Amino acid sequence: MSITISAFARSPDGGNGHARDMRVRWALEEAGLAYDVQLMSFEALKQPDYLALQPFGQIPAYEEDGIVLFESGAILLHIAECHGGLLPLDPARRAIAISWMFGALNTLEPPIVEWETAHYFEHDMPWYRERLQMIKVRIRQRFADLARALGEAEWLAGGFSAADILMVTVLRRLEGSGLVEEFPSLAAYVERGKARPAFQRAVAAQRAEFLKAECARDA
Amino acid sequence: MSITISAFARSPDGGNGHARDMRVRWALEEAGLAYDVQLMSFEALKQPDYLALQPFGQIPAYEEDGIVLFESGAILLHIAECHGGLLPLDPARRAIAISWMFGALNTLEPPIVEWETAHYFEHDMPWYRERLQMIKVRIRQRFADLARALGEAEWLAGGFSAADILMVTVLRRLEGSGLVEEFPSLAAYVERGKARPAFQRAVAAQRAEFLKAECARDA
Repeated sequence: MSITISAFARSPDGGNGHARDMRVRWALEEAGLAYDVQLMSFEALKQPDYLALQPFGQIPAYEEDGIVLFESGAILLHIAECHGGLLPLDPARRAIAISWMFGALNTLEPPIVEWETAHYFEHDMPWYRERLQMIKVRIRQRFADLARALGEAEWLAGGFSAADILMVTVLRRLEGSGLVEEFPSLAAYVERGKARPAFQRAVAAQRAEFLKAECARDA
Repeated sequence: MSITISAFARSPDGGNGHARDMRVRWALEEAGLAYDVQLMSFEALKQPDYLALQPFGQIPAYEEDGIVLFESGAILLHIAECHGGLLPLDPARRAIAISWMFGALNTLEPPIVEWETAHYFEHDMPWYRERLQMIKVRIRQRFADLARALGEAEWLAGGFSAADILMVTVLRRLEGSGLVEEFPSLAAYVERGKARPAFQRAVAAQRAEFLKAECARDA
């Protein structure tokens, strides 16, 4: 079996692993699967051959022996379903885990991406500070719900699952904002995720590629 | 088998079926499955018994013989996987269909929800018109990608699938804005979806419940 994923050649976050390929790397490390990485320039993302794989010119795309997937959620579901260990076997627990996968991507991530987008594109607008506060209010509402649902549990759906990979990586997008830290149980949840050896291997692999690419550019 | 979904007792869109229960109703009609609806007041959505089913107090939640799901994407995936007919059987086509399901929810829907949120919460802000234009630029970029990927095809992944139910209902959120109409092939795609008998049965069922609830309130 041969797996290839795409990632940014020049990560906009300076190698901190906040782009969506990290979710896929982490899942592959948890599943013990080797993979190749195709590093993409921003220009290459908009070329027809890549758009045929990934219609929005985003990363990551995923190829595995004739199967192509795009969207990090779809890729994680595929890895979890086909390579085992990242979803509960019990149908009721499995349903909850998959619900949380979509919850991470369709309920939690959108206001967080809106916060990022405002940072990038509205930073110099006169309304920036006021809008940022409005977005933060919405993020905090979601976080209060998430913290209540998590309660004293270690992970979202019984044992560690693909839902936790998605949720932890979604929450990590806010690193440095202090927002997650307002909810100590969520901050502890993110730290539990980051402490997993598979996460650390994924970060190290992503970081090594980033540094190698930077060196090549400087040479 | 007994299926129950939750929906708004008082739909904020005046019975036009833009809330996320429509996706689930449509999928159930396509699959030929009967279902009950639990109509929820906004207050009831925030009560502990409902939050135990749906952690964010949103609709829809889905119950089926001991299985509970939340998030419309997870519910559609469950209906498609367990009740057949809404996902291709060929693994490569199936992977594409599931990629589009996540694409509808994680790439297309977020800027569209941001457009709606701006409409509801920033309408009286001095920056409203300028921000609306910024959001429209981002939506149009996604629509250009989507139109190119769809090309001359009738549906996103070969035959009609759960991906089309999600994508059409996501695009319907913009009804009245004129944005979808800027891309004639996307407008035609939405009309193809709306012309399906299962969609029309779902709309009729939702509308009948809405009118009944309105009459009961007026009585």
